Amino acid sequence: MIPENLLKQIEFIKEIDKIKYIQRRTKLFASDRNENDAEHSWHLAMMAIVLSEYSDAEIDLMKVVKMVLIHDIVEIDAGDTFIYDQNKNHDNTEEELKSAKRIFGILPEEQAKEFIEIWTEFEDGISNEAKFARSMDRLEPLLQNTSNNGGTWEEFGVKYQAVYEKKKIIKNGSTELWNYAESLIEDSVEKGILKK
Amino acid sequence: MIPENLLKQIEFIKEIDKIKYIQRRTKLFASDRNENDAEHSWHLAMMAIVLSEYSDAEIDLMKVVKMVLIHDIVEIDAGDTFIYDQNKNHDNTEEELKSAKRIFGILPEEQAKEFIEIWTEFEDGISNEAKFARSMDRLEPLLQNTSNNGGTWEEFGVKYQAVYEKKKIIKNGSTELWNYAESLIEDSVEKGILKK
Repeated sequence: MIPENLLKQIEFIKEIDKIKYIQRRTKLFASDRNENDAEHSWHLAMMAIVLSEYSDAEIDLMKVVKMVLIHDIVEIDAGDTFIYDQNKNHDNTEEELKSAKRIFGILPEEQAKEFIEIWTEFEDGISNEAKFARSMDRLEPLLQNTSNNGGTWEEFGVKYQAVYEKKKIIKNGSTELWNYAESLIEDSVEKGILKK
Repeated sequence: MIPENLLKQIEFIKEIDKIKYIQRRTKLFASDRNENDAEHSWHLAMMAIVLSEYSDAEIDLMKVVKMVLIHDIVEIDAGDTFIYDQNKNHDNTEEELKSAKRIFGILPEEQAKEFIEIWTEFEDGISNEAKFARSMDRLEPLLQNTSNNGGTWEEFGVKYQAVYEKKKIIKNGSTELWNYAESLIEDSVEKGILKK
């Protein structure tokens, strides 16, 4: 007999495969191929592990890694919203919460509750773990765009001020990484790949 | 001033982007699109988190997650070897070790050492964490092939005995997951998507 909980977990594992089809606007490094949400989540998990020493606060790294691995699963139902979209709010929409409840709700009750809590904590961005996880989420596309001659900034006409506003959230997680990020932004202006 | 260690870590983060171009033989769930190594690694990390309760031994989940996230990074240089390849050894080749040393060696010394150790521990398959991580690595393509009418078994004429031999490694990590895996294998024979 296969335990009922295991069958629910397997169903969840199959369902989240769909994240591999969700395309982001951002391109891979030095590339014109769009990144998908599974690749993005893997990369953020690697970054969190590699860069954890730069967190200003003590963090539970396992929780940060869980956050970044699951943070975009809601996009299976809600889709990816471009961070510089002027019409649609990027974060914490009702649509995303509904999606979180449906998809994490496939899991056994206790586990579903844990995943929804972790996802909500990430979205709220208040805990030390959420702050560091969100730093990773802002840093990766900055690295990608600077490796792609401006990438989505160039493609969608995003200006310095908008980039700076979105990126300064990195500072909430890590002063050191924000110093680095700021230097990349200033460099980009000097190189003319980011316009003031 | 940007710390030298941080610059090494950023270089590593850029280098490992290449894993997104490494195609596996296995297809996504109910799909004819090949999976790449970043997607595969993300999925294994999710599986390890979701299924950790089924590990026969106590495990350090963070270590298991690190193992599955990094286990295929060596394929950036060494390429993906099909698990049922009759001519080339799938595991622990000299080529892979050389690759591990080059890629993890981009990191600051201490971190490089840690990553090479974790990767070697995974490859050796002896510790409880390695056993469970390897169970995940064997279970995912089983779930994929059964969702794809045989998938790579059908495509490359892989027979029951070869599949059973490769999959029984799941038992080293989890009796419960092996029971489930075995039932999937037997089902596949009954359905005619796996030939004896």
